[in-house]
Amino acid sequence: MQDQQTNESFIVQYKNHLKAGDLTGCLAVLQELQPFDIAVLFVSLEPKQQPQLLRMLDTRLLADMMQELTPTAQYDAFRLLGRNRTTEVMDRMDNDDLALFLDSLTEEDRNRFLADMDAEESENVQRLMNYPPETAGRIMTNRYVWIPLYYSVKEAVGKIREFAEISETLSYLYVIDEAKKLIGVVSYRDLILADATDQIADIMYTRVISVTVDTDQEEVATIMRRYDFLALPVVDESQVLSGIVTVDDIMDVIVHEANEDIHKLSGGAKGIDFDTKPGTAAIRRLPWLVLLLFIGLVSGTIISRFEDTLNQIVALAFFMPMIAGMTGNTGTQSLAVVVRGLISREMDRQEIFRLVKREFTVGLLIGLTCGVLVTIIAYVWQGSLTLGLVVGVSLLLTLILGTLAGTVIPLLLNKLKIDPAIASGPLITTLNDVLSLLIYFGIATAFLSYLL
Amino acid sequence: MQDQQTNESFIVQYKNHLKAGDLTGCLAVLQELQPFDIAVLFVSLEPKQQPQLLRMLDTRLLADMMQELTPTAQYDAFRLLGRNRTTEVMDRMDNDDLALFLDSLTEEDRNRFLADMDAEESENVQRLMNYPPETAGRIMTNRYVWIPLYYSVKEAVGKIREFAEISETLSYLYVIDEAKKLIGVVSYRDLILADATDQIADIMYTRVISVTVDTDQEEVATIMRRYDFLALPVVDESQVLSGIVTVDDIMDVIVHEANEDIHKLSGGAKGIDFDTKPGTAAIRRLPWLVLLLFIGLVSGTIISRFEDTLNQIVALAFFMPMIAGMTGNTGTQSLAVVVRGLISREMDRQEIFRLVKREFTVGLLIGLTCGVLVTIIAYVWQGSLTLGLVVGVSLLLTLILGTLAGTVIPLLLNKLKIDPAIASGPLITTLNDVLSLLIYFGIATAFLSYLL
Repeated sequence: MQDQQTNESFIVQYKNHLKAGDLTGCLAVLQELQPFDIAVLFVSLEPKQQPQLLRMLDTRLLADMMQELTPTAQYDAFRLLGRNRTTEVMDRMDNDDLALFLDSLTEEDRNRFLADMDAEESENVQRLMNYPPETAGRIMTNRYVWIPLYYSVKEAVGKIREFAEISETLSYLYVIDEAKKLIGVVSYRDLILADATDQIADIMYTRVISVTVDTDQEEVATIMRRYDFLALPVVDESQVLSGIVTVDDIMDVIVHEANEDIHKLSGGAKGIDFDTKPGTAAIRRLPWLVLLLFIGLVSGTIISRFEDTLNQIVALAFFMPMIAGMTGNTGTQSLAVVVRGLISREMDRQEIFRLVKREFTVGLLIGLTCGVLVTIIAYVWQGSLTLGLVVGVSLLLTLILGTLAGTVIPLLLNKLKIDPAIASGPLITTLNDVLSLLIYFGIATAFLSYLL
Repeated sequence: MQDQQTNESFIVQYKNHLKAGDLTGCLAVLQELQPFDIAVLFVSLEPKQQPQLLRMLDTRLLADMMQELTPTAQYDAFRLLGRNRTTEVMDRMDNDDLALFLDSLTEEDRNRFLADMDAEESENVQRLMNYPPETAGRIMTNRYVWIPLYYSVKEAVGKIREFAEISETLSYLYVIDEAKKLIGVVSYRDLILADATDQIADIMYTRVISVTVDTDQEEVATIMRRYDFLALPVVDESQVLSGIVTVDDIMDVIVHEANEDIHKLSGGAKGIDFDTKPGTAAIRRLPWLVLLLFIGLVSGTIISRFEDTLNQIVALAFFMPMIAGMTGNTGTQSLAVVVRGLISREMDRQEIFRLVKREFTVGLLIGLTCGVLVTIIAYVWQGSLTLGLVVGVSLLLTLILGTLAGTVIPLLLNKLKIDPAIASGPLITTLNDVLSLLIYFGIATAFLSYLL
């Protein structure tokens, strides 16, 4: 691929031209770059070299580059641009990206930026910022091409041409009626295959697949993946076309949602990344940990209830961490299969039953294998077949139970319309700890006379 | 959105028309459907109603619908189509989807299907199947539009028109030289904004961002996300254009890779989903579990070395699960942050240092909070301040250590070019178990005289 190395080579090239005072050379480098690369170059320059670069970019490229910068770098870049060009660039940016930038500012700065903008653009971006986070309304853009129903193919092609420069996608044309309601869609492919004199009304799809402004972004992603769309129209409660969501934003949504699932599954808090301050990260993680601490102490009270048993056979304590750990691990394995599986399918009663049965069988097979193994090890190590059998049978039972807990709990949460990823790994692990200790000491106490 | 309900309503509509013998009505329903919906409809029909549906679809729609079916359903559908139409449809399918289908067959069936195909198409799909799994070569398609360097814009538009029906994306035109080497790219947007008489050579980008056939699909996804591309060209080792990867396949790659990370992090095996047979699932999960079983027994031997301590203060056992569990949990939390963070950035030495320092501080803060809390609880519960302090200080130390292990181990693996997700939650948890028990019993033994 044209990778890091090429990235670095264009930066070196640009800087060499700059050092030689060869602005034409600099411009030649810029002309071959993608917005992302220009952003990388911009950030790599000395502060005093940055204004020069900004002056060489036209408004469109500047707007595209801005979208690739972090909010802090955007802020710096806007300050270098000066008020007039800032306004031009902001009017040109996709309003979903702009909303993200404005969200990162203090209220005072935000109002100042908004006041400078074109009234219509400013209103658009403010409307966007009013939608709840992680909804279609928040990630949609208003840079698309719409046409009225009475257009011919020729007129539609003319409109595409006119809006080519500002629209985010050229793959679909959305057809609306007098009330701005979405009534059809024409793909660019259909347009190319039609005759110039054909009427849009005759070639459009009338069953438009759309989402509403408050549709969850994860659902938007599922629909786009299902239909392999490059963009999806967003309507309000009265079917009025409000914007479109494009596939590049959806790729980011998919990554973001996967990260969120992973953090939930690992019991980590949302919103912790490499840049989060330690205090904030600690406060976000603590609630879960304190809860788990108390559940952990429940394990302690269980052991304390079996104090007599433990006092008589201290060797029982040697196998405690292994049994609790293994039960937690099988639970987490099942959990991961269920949580991710639920993302791609709806489950009916029959499928749930089939899955639970499958996981039960898996637990049984794993339990038998590990149970026999540990019976032998315990017998060889401690010289007591009874102890070996107590440990082995306990492990068999707890592994079956652990697997079932990891399967049934997320399915149950899903049925109750609670996000199953909330049944995080640590929760399942800790619950399984408690269960496994009850079983282990229960069996041990029952066979106590044989163990002594 | 036009969701499940609409899905079901079109199925009902179609079946009603079918019952009434109204084929025109059936056809009208079909005309408004997307390939995915037709696939849903096809699967929902009785076997004897299926051939009728297939007869009503043209080759193109059939090929698109096939791509939405599972391999088993594809096989059934092809059998219903008969040999001639099967060949037509296979020649028309994207060769990445076709390769997936052929991969699912027995060798005998595969050879039979391949023999029936058009010689060139058959060769194409076989070449694709020879690339290693999860590489760009395996997921690329040959349905794209390429043009020679000497074309004018008008000629290019003509070629798009000619290939509109079969090409997977119309967003980019790839420019190649006489040796079929990729030398430029023109976006459809540029084409629309250019004059008909402009030369392609003048308006194309010559710095084409491309990947090679053996680029890992995860890297392809990163590049597409970075540049917001809708398709990415794939070249062989001599820069000859071999195919393109489209964004719809990349969305699936992103989901697939996230699922893989989750399974690795949860210590589950790759390739287990709702349809995996219990025996297979058990065999895939067992290796990890057996390894963890042995590590778990190491915890046991540690406890056995402190048998005397434990014998004297059985209450120490009550806090064992809590300490081991908490250490595992904080480790998993740090792990999740690091593993997913590494996906979106390269880390230099300075950033690594900053991250480790951050996690150390987080561990310290969490350790202090939980340590104080558990000291008080242990004191109130067991009536011994010394025991409380032993438990509290142990927890403080193990939490700091757990956090660091969850941070440093994946970073180290990443440095060694090993996938950090392999340092799965269960591994970190089990390692942290061992460490925490050593610390806990070490401190307890040191203060034994005060504890008695």
